[in-house]
Amino acid sequence: MTTVALPLLPERRTLQVAHGATILASAQAAGVDITATCGGRGRCTSCRVKFVSGAVPPPTVMDELQLGDALVREGYRLSCQCRVVEPVDVLVAPPLDERSFQILGARVPPEELARIEIDSGIRKEVVTIDLPKEEHRQTSDLEALLALVGRTTEDVSPEVLKTLPHALRDHHGEITVTTFGSRLLAVEPGDTSLLKFGLAVDIGTTSVVTTLMELESGEQLAAVSSLNPQAVFGADLMSRIAFAQFNPGNLRKLQTRIIGLLNQHIEQIVRDSGVLAKWIYKVVIVGNTCMHHILLGIDPSHVGLAPYAPVMRHPLVLPARELFLKVNPEARVCLLPIVAGFVGADAVGVALATRIAETPDLRIAVDIGTNGEVLLGSRDRLWACSAPAGPALEGAQLRHGMRGALGAIDRVWLEDGDLRVQTIGDAPAQGICGSGVIDAIAVLLDTGAIDWMGLIAVEERDRLPAPLRERIGVRGEERVVILVRPSEGDAPREILLTQDDIRQVQLCKGAIASGAAMLQRIAGVAPEQVSELMLAGGFGNYLSIRSALRIGLIPPLPASRIRYVGNAAALGAQLALMSEAERARADRIARRIDHVSLAAHPDFQDVFVDCLNFPRA
Amino acid sequence: MTTVALPLLPERRTLQVAHGATILASAQAAGVDITATCGGRGRCTSCRVKFVSGAVPPPTVMDELQLGDALVREGYRLSCQCRVVEPVDVLVAPPLDERSFQILGARVPPEELARIEIDSGIRKEVVTIDLPKEEHRQTSDLEALLALVGRTTEDVSPEVLKTLPHALRDHHGEITVTTFGSRLLAVEPGDTSLLKFGLAVDIGTTSVVTTLMELESGEQLAAVSSLNPQAVFGADLMSRIAFAQFNPGNLRKLQTRIIGLLNQHIEQIVRDSGVLAKWIYKVVIVGNTCMHHILLGIDPSHVGLAPYAPVMRHPLVLPARELFLKVNPEARVCLLPIVAGFVGADAVGVALATRIAETPDLRIAVDIGTNGEVLLGSRDRLWACSAPAGPALEGAQLRHGMRGALGAIDRVWLEDGDLRVQTIGDAPAQGICGSGVIDAIAVLLDTGAIDWMGLIAVEERDRLPAPLRERIGVRGEERVVILVRPSEGDAPREILLTQDDIRQVQLCKGAIASGAAMLQRIAGVAPEQVSELMLAGGFGNYLSIRSALRIGLIPPLPASRIRYVGNAAALGAQLALMSEAERARADRIARRIDHVSLAAHPDFQDVFVDCLNFPRA
Repeated sequence: MTTVALPLLPERRTLQVAHGATILASAQAAGVDITATCGGRGRCTSCRVKFVSGAVPPPTVMDELQLGDALVREGYRLSCQCRVVEPVDVLVAPPLDERSFQILGARVPPEELARIEIDSGIRKEVVTIDLPKEEHRQTSDLEALLALVGRTTEDVSPEVLKTLPHALRDHHGEITVTTFGSRLLAVEPGDTSLLKFGLAVDIGTTSVVTTLMELESGEQLAAVSSLNPQAVFGADLMSRIAFAQFNPGNLRKLQTRIIGLLNQHIEQIVRDSGVLAKWIYKVVIVGNTCMHHILLGIDPSHVGLAPYAPVMRHPLVLPARELFLKVNPEARVCLLPIVAGFVGADAVGVALATRIAETPDLRIAVDIGTNGEVLLGSRDRLWACSAPAGPALEGAQLRHGMRGALGAIDRVWLEDGDLRVQTIGDAPAQGICGSGVIDAIAVLLDTGAIDWMGLIAVEERDRLPAPLRERIGVRGEERVVILVRPSEGDAPREILLTQDDIRQVQLCKGAIASGAAMLQRIAGVAPEQVSELMLAGGFGNYLSIRSALRIGLIPPLPASRIRYVGNAAALGAQLALMSEAERARADRIARRIDHVSLAAHPDFQDVFVDCLNFPRA
Repeated sequence: MTTVALPLLPERRTLQVAHGATILASAQAAGVDITATCGGRGRCTSCRVKFVSGAVPPPTVMDELQLGDALVREGYRLSCQCRVVEPVDVLVAPPLDERSFQILGARVPPEELARIEIDSGIRKEVVTIDLPKEEHRQTSDLEALLALVGRTTEDVSPEVLKTLPHALRDHHGEITVTTFGSRLLAVEPGDTSLLKFGLAVDIGTTSVVTTLMELESGEQLAAVSSLNPQAVFGADLMSRIAFAQFNPGNLRKLQTRIIGLLNQHIEQIVRDSGVLAKWIYKVVIVGNTCMHHILLGIDPSHVGLAPYAPVMRHPLVLPARELFLKVNPEARVCLLPIVAGFVGADAVGVALATRIAETPDLRIAVDIGTNGEVLLGSRDRLWACSAPAGPALEGAQLRHGMRGALGAIDRVWLEDGDLRVQTIGDAPAQGICGSGVIDAIAVLLDTGAIDWMGLIAVEERDRLPAPLRERIGVRGEERVVILVRPSEGDAPREILLTQDDIRQVQLCKGAIASGAAMLQRIAGVAPEQVSELMLAGGFGNYLSIRSALRIGLIPPLPASRIRYVGNAAALGAQLALMSEAERARADRIARRIDHVSLAAHPDFQDVFVDCLNFPRA
């Protein structure tokens, strides 16, 4: 065993590292989080550590490829690659600040609430029970209750039985009986009929949003969003599947993390709203197939292997206690149905919220996210495909990328021949987030600083305005654009957009754009036939539509036909929470969606390669 | 805080005792078991400790009443009464040896197995699944399986879903599907159709018996029995209810103890038989109402308060995972139904096993146990009452009482004018168990050493044979019979039967005898109309029928009409395990039984007082 000291706040941790184990694996085993967005496969730099004392191990090929000479010389190594043989001290790259995040919540608009049939399925009935006093009466608490409310023993779980002795006696026999369908969820002393709440949860690969709603009015009482804490084990779905693959211990880790986070959300919501957890009787969850399977503890390995079949697809309803969610133990947790391995309940939520399956005209919905999805259709026909964009637009896997937190560059424009940036909260620039990267690339394309194939035009820089020209250069062997110099604003450091960053964005936008293009091709739909393009997703609302069009992230439609629809997956969950009719509709929609498996399509490679390039002005 | 050192094996424990807390409560809170058969109410001596250093606290009234002057002077105190204010060392009374117990198991006789319809409800079907290979097929593992076996998604729990990815692929598609009714319990790779096992469990107030059976043949493959580990919190039901009453923490302790014990049984059965826990698909449990409720975590408080109503009575079936039993997580745990607060599923098991509800002639079944039950009836009518005998016949609450373990006196007779004893295993006498106490009292009644009202006839001892005369005396203010002197055999100590011990046995036999008498009176049945008396219970088979008749434990019938039927409650569980038809019959029987609430009957007090006395020769 070797000792590694990690100076993590709030306390310095010393780890024992088994001979042959990596620092990353040892840290994770000891419960110390080191972010590893690629899943510890040496494909990114997020897990880097800096050696501050002890022998620095020789760099691996991955260290050199990912970190570059300069960082390697400074003592940086990838902790996923790095094995140590003597006690050392290392510094871990600062963890992401999970508190100051711009994650888009969702709120069902009042006109939408007015349109749906509000009926959450949760009913409360106040009755008065008169327990027999005579010893010779052969009966039980339960039988007395069932006779009163007209249910059978089949409708009651042992969890509810535990509450009967007190509930039936604590309030002179006045009780409130809560049901969902035929199921008896709770028996509470006194009249609690006004207390009916539910949660809508959207579990994304990168972020998780939980909303508390009052079940009669649809009023949103509290909302919490966080990063998905599974991300330290891999930023994209394939990394996360690789982590869990045929490894029940790792699967359990992923499951525990998401359940733990949901319980944190519940705690915070209870604190913020004053609503007690026991009054939450229904939970609707959407998420992609992998998130869905992991939440249930189902191995998603085969979701990641051809033919990419999910283990199950039907809408599942189970008691909260089976998922260890700390709401009412008998609360019904409803998981919306799944379409295919990479078109999950989140896509169904988007379809539900956008009403894409109900209008006569053809529309496209693009859900931008680490594992994006594209839907195209109308009430006649509906297609969907996955668009595995990766986490670049969420700031991961870029040299100075960060998520939409305080100090992230989120707007870039040209002014007086030079780049200008805006940061979130007007704080000193710490890095750049997705909307900033898209703006930056759009500006650089407009000025010719990047060509249509994505190359930073170092050779052509003399054609650029002088201030911009000074920002284009070569570091080591890499082309870079200097977005912020340490001297500018109060920026504590230089912020670069590297050639490799631009390649990452090209892969990302290529996935989304080719998905939309393929669906149009397969459906035989010309651009002018598309009446509307709906931009959905956790950060969809922060994107500049002009920039998104400029870099070709979305199909070239008139801006007037493009509309933000917010976090539509979360909205879909809220609709299904408020209305059993909507939840039933989700199931019908899921069965109607034609899943298009892009990789299997003969045209796909060509379309994808085309979409990697930027539109020529 | 004060320190108490407890020299418990294997290590000396030092406890911190909060000011004002008793040693017993502090020890139990720290997970150290001190037996407290009365539930820590100062009503017995089982929790006594001896002070070996430090100030001995002044004796309480309970100390003096229970322990007597001599023991109090020697530094003994009841740990349930005793509060200390400075560091002390105490010795705890030696714990009961839980291993060398005579607890009667049960085995369904072959002729009985031949008579019932063997059909446990567990079915195994071997099928071959061919998962689609094409990506465009919109399906899932589960849908492919359901199409093959003709079930719906409603029949499958998430627990089974977790096993699908591997089960469907690990054995070239050959799988074994296990069902119980419409419920799909397991999907296993390969052909496991010959592996079908189940458990029958009898949870008594004092002892717990678990049996493993092969579900096609009914062969009994392993059996384990233990003391009920809840007994340290109270030997009889009322003590245990008092412990749990309105105290969710204590209820949880009792539940955890019994579930922990069942899992120990399962581990041992798995070790003994080689049967894997995952092949156990059905569990049938019987127990009295209080044991049943505690197992489910249901507060039994109101079972102990008029009108003594149970919280539920119906036959419950739930998955093993909900009780945290370590068999197949989806195994169906079937709890037989309950009749009333003090006539539980154990009485239903006795009725099932004895066929008392199916014969034309009237019979009586007496289930002797800490919470005994008496049944009287035929196929026309069936009555039952509880007979709260208490634990005296199981050796508890007697000065030198012990359970049927190595060294317990289990037979007593008169020879050459003196008492002779036999011990279990012919070991040096350590104490006396139930059958020994009944023999001793019968002999002492026969000789006139005890009169019909139970008084030790010290004044009349000159009429006794000389050797016996020497054994009768007075210690302090208490009349005693010396059963064994330290010089006799290799006995390490004197063994006494005290006047108070005899009073305890009178209360015990009074409860059983008055139960039988009351049922006969209410049913209007004369003794000659009773065709058979069946003696059931964990130690029923070790009793001398002659002695039992002599002391009036059972109604005065000719010995030829009295028969041992073994641990009938456990046998009933085995029948319901092997046969769904028998399990259904149990439910019909439970609904047929007329529960007689003795305490509410105007004649009861007189009958009970009569039954406290011994028959006059």
